[in-house]
Amino acid sequence: MLKEFDFKKKNETYLKVKRKELGEKLFYLQRICEKENVPVIIMVDGWESSGRGRVINDIVRELNTKLYDVYVLDGKNFDDYLFTRKFWEALPAKGEFSVFDRSMYHLMLNELTCKNKIEKRRIKEVENLEKILHNDHTILLKFFLHIDKKRQKKNIKKLKKDKYRDFLVSDYDIEQNENYDAYLDHFDDIIEKTNFSFAPWNIINADNKKDASKQVLGICLEYIRTRLAEIKELRLRESKFVAGDIEKNYFIEDLDLNKSISEKDYDVQIDELQKLARDMAYELYTENIPTVIAFEGIDAAGKGGAIQRLVRHMDPRGYRINPISSPTDAEKDHHYLWRFENNFPPKGKMAIFDRSWYGRVLVERVEGFANEYEWSRAYEEINRMEEELVENGYLLIKFLLVISKDEQKSRFDARQEEKPYKITDEDWRNREKWKSYLTSMNDMIKMTSTEQAPWYVISSEDKKFARIEVLKTFIDEAGKILKENRKNK
Amino acid sequence: MLKEFDFKKKNETYLKVKRKELGEKLFYLQRICEKENVPVIIMVDGWESSGRGRVINDIVRELNTKLYDVYVLDGKNFDDYLFTRKFWEALPAKGEFSVFDRSMYHLMLNELTCKNKIEKRRIKEVENLEKILHNDHTILLKFFLHIDKKRQKKNIKKLKKDKYRDFLVSDYDIEQNENYDAYLDHFDDIIEKTNFSFAPWNIINADNKKDASKQVLGICLEYIRTRLAEIKELRLRESKFVAGDIEKNYFIEDLDLNKSISEKDYDVQIDELQKLARDMAYELYTENIPTVIAFEGIDAAGKGGAIQRLVRHMDPRGYRINPISSPTDAEKDHHYLWRFENNFPPKGKMAIFDRSWYGRVLVERVEGFANEYEWSRAYEEINRMEEELVENGYLLIKFLLVISKDEQKSRFDARQEEKPYKITDEDWRNREKWKSYLTSMNDMIKMTSTEQAPWYVISSEDKKFARIEVLKTFIDEAGKILKENRKNK
Repeated sequence: MLKEFDFKKKNETYLKVKRKELGEKLFYLQRICEKENVPVIIMVDGWESSGRGRVINDIVRELNTKLYDVYVLDGKNFDDYLFTRKFWEALPAKGEFSVFDRSMYHLMLNELTCKNKIEKRRIKEVENLEKILHNDHTILLKFFLHIDKKRQKKNIKKLKKDKYRDFLVSDYDIEQNENYDAYLDHFDDIIEKTNFSFAPWNIINADNKKDASKQVLGICLEYIRTRLAEIKELRLRESKFVAGDIEKNYFIEDLDLNKSISEKDYDVQIDELQKLARDMAYELYTENIPTVIAFEGIDAAGKGGAIQRLVRHMDPRGYRINPISSPTDAEKDHHYLWRFENNFPPKGKMAIFDRSWYGRVLVERVEGFANEYEWSRAYEEINRMEEELVENGYLLIKFLLVISKDEQKSRFDARQEEKPYKITDEDWRNREKWKSYLTSMNDMIKMTSTEQAPWYVISSEDKKFARIEVLKTFIDEAGKILKENRKNK
Repeated sequence: MLKEFDFKKKNETYLKVKRKELGEKLFYLQRICEKENVPVIIMVDGWESSGRGRVINDIVRELNTKLYDVYVLDGKNFDDYLFTRKFWEALPAKGEFSVFDRSMYHLMLNELTCKNKIEKRRIKEVENLEKILHNDHTILLKFFLHIDKKRQKKNIKKLKKDKYRDFLVSDYDIEQNENYDAYLDHFDDIIEKTNFSFAPWNIINADNKKDASKQVLGICLEYIRTRLAEIKELRLRESKFVAGDIEKNYFIEDLDLNKSISEKDYDVQIDELQKLARDMAYELYTENIPTVIAFEGIDAAGKGGAIQRLVRHMDPRGYRINPISSPTDAEKDHHYLWRFENNFPPKGKMAIFDRSWYGRVLVERVEGFANEYEWSRAYEEINRMEEELVENGYLLIKFLLVISKDEQKSRFDARQEEKPYKITDEDWRNREKWKSYLTSMNDMIKMTSTEQAPWYVISSEDKKFARIEVLKTFIDEAGKILKENRKNK
């Protein structure tokens, strides 16, 4: 797409219009996006010294200052996290604009000699990310500012002479110009591979900066208008979507809830296992392996207690427990995976989720907070996200703790006595939906228990039995990944 | 306090009690703190290899995992921000616990050869911070784990032999042990200087780790209980506090609102000034000077428009506009300065606030969201905060845009026609409180227009006049600080 680019050809439609007029039209569309609760992402990538700053300035100049943010993703602080992390952090809320000076593509474009395997993985990950954003009705615009070798050299020279802006020229700019052809090959390849139908690239002739801005603005106007109309229609259609039945071959109802452990055995084992778990956590830390552990289970299933026993001897500087309750307003205004993606740990650290992203297909499904179209496509989205974690070397463990309806009743009764603050009317109401929760859990297991990220379904009818099982599973899984890791060294 | 410490003397009261029992009592107090909406900060500083990890583990072991977080402030990523920034970010919400493995004191303790001037400033800053937290009814516990040179050496040796924990020993540990006496002098000095009556240090004999935990837990129990009782009483007393009248010597009512600029003059000047402002912003960036600009003014005073004109030609990667509206739930659960402290820019960057921390003494005062005790002590808190910014090399500019009540009316009427979405019933209701807003603005100017951070009160009756004034003031102030900065080099 870049190599055969004809710098003489220009999209004339918008070049005749005044920049300010285009800017004001974008301001007008921004108001509609705000009204319609549609987030907009504008990514401005391109050659170094191709004038990204100027173009971004021209994009935001007429916008409502309260509803946009500009982010610079220059590749710093990416290392310890998932490749897409900084981008997730900067995603716009509903009705807002995020403009990126360089996007997460920067890392891919930047690395001329990137290992093929990593590059392939990254391409899959951006595809995945852009797809879920697209499906969530985010408007996504990708621009690449294209210039030829001569123009880049001229721009660099001019910038270096500018007493206020000379610092904008880095060694990398010069290195890129010297190796222009190699970079051209590489960019062309990446752009080609990431030119997805749902998130196509716009190659912009940046030979003339003012014209570049006009073209970018013009494309924004056109694309946002088109997408807004599409989104309106899609939302209507999706609201009427009816999810088909999911064929099950596993039923939580069949789980043997009679498993138990004697007080004596528990007392003998627990401390030993906790110390082993602590040692494993230290090893994961020294081996730089990040860990994500998700706990699901009906109210009073014993998630909190199991977590407390799991971490008891661990170094509290190494883990973080994320209690997941109803989303905050900010969380509601973002993709449902946003609050999880932004809390996955860096290398060597552990994040424990007391309830998790599975809320989408459990409580949100049962209570109708997500419509059928939304929760039914979540299975695949979650599987992809978990696949990414595993492929990036994360240790991922998912626990579902199960109790009977009778056991829940007696735990609620006990709580009402001892810790009345821990039990609400809502807890009692949820019991009435026991069957719906069971159905959604069975569907969840069927759809998301993958080879890479299987569910551990554990009877918690005897709390102590469950705690021991959780510890054993963690120790086992940590042992496996550590062994694997050493083999690969 | 450290030098004359007697390692043979121990606080026996808690050593006889089982650690678990102490932990459970802390869990019980945690529930009360949650109920009473009191945040708790526990800072664990001390010698390297003194067993902070173990103590922290013992503190949190019995706590409700949903209501605490452990933070490691190891001095990384502090550089570009205010010295206290990472601590602000980690402050607990009401009813929650934040436990710090090393606090912001780490930076001070760590630097044996710190320049006297910087150290003095830092001490003032922690004093200020701890005082405002104390006044806001946060419970603050400061622990220093003390060991002698021999014990430290032993601990290091033991850790190094531990196959799981050897990584916990860094070069810094060894360096500290080798220069134990110099560090002892330095620590003693810092501890002495920061042993504030409202936030005293607890020196813990960490010769025996288990005993150290028990002492820490015991002190936590005692102090939290005492403070909870005090806070209850204080809250009652403060709710009845009546603020005295503030003597004024300046009245916004007297401002000449007839100042204006002709269309022609405006058109001639605006673009020139915007380009100058852009160049200034570039210079501030290259000189590593951070900038904070606050805009206040009654509804429809033209804040948004003035901001837009100020940044028009600036590189959007260099500034961030923070629109301040009603606080979110998370913001309400923190100190009122929290959302501002966490948005002050790093070196070289600019943060513009469309409304600011002055909300405390304007809207919150007028609407009664803050009681008289709260808003009347805010003046001093704000002055101190601004003083810190200035002393840390920030360029700080505060604008108050003023219009008449009639002018507001005609702007509201115009908005109702053109942009009805921009005007709400609340806006009309606020007009009824015009006089209260005037009083609180006059008080604000009187109390917070300091030499270091004066208010620029600008007539915005003619919007264009105000925009030009804002630009000129920014250019002037930036010029001054740049000149000063070069002189000091």
